[in-house]
Amino acid sequence: MNQTFKVTGMTCGHCVNAVQRAILKTDNTAKIQVDLPTGLVSVASSLPRSTLVAVIEEAGYKVTSP
Amino acid sequence: MNQTFKVTGMTCGHCVNAVQRAILKTDNTAKIQVDLPTGLVSVASSLPRSTLVAVIEEAGYKVTSP
Repeated sequence: MNQTFKVTGMTCGHCVNAVQRAILKTDNTAKIQVDLPTGLVSVASSLPRSTLVAVIEEAGYKVTSP
Repeated sequence: MNQTFKVTGMTCGHCVNAVQRAILKTDNTAKIQVDLPTGLVSVASSLPRSTLVAVIEEAGYKVTSP
């Protein structure tokens, strides 16, 4: 299931990698697309949305749209 | 010898770590201080200034003051 999040706090490619690694650590089959300028993170994963939000926030970023 | 560089392109803590790791890989005795808001990188190292500039730029950042 494809889920999109608006994430703030990603400022560079290292941040993009950190978010991707955090998600893949929880679901290593997830397909992730990140657009750094807009902060949009699109995740194809069977994980519940609340888990993905928690994982992204634990990595140090803020999810601003529910 | 203490040398100071003005570095642009560091946007977050990951970038600071990348610059520090790059310098330490070349001189593992270097003492490094980075101020992210100003981009000032202070390095205590016996490496020549030109080598430090090359290392920082190879890590993907730009040294703007000679």
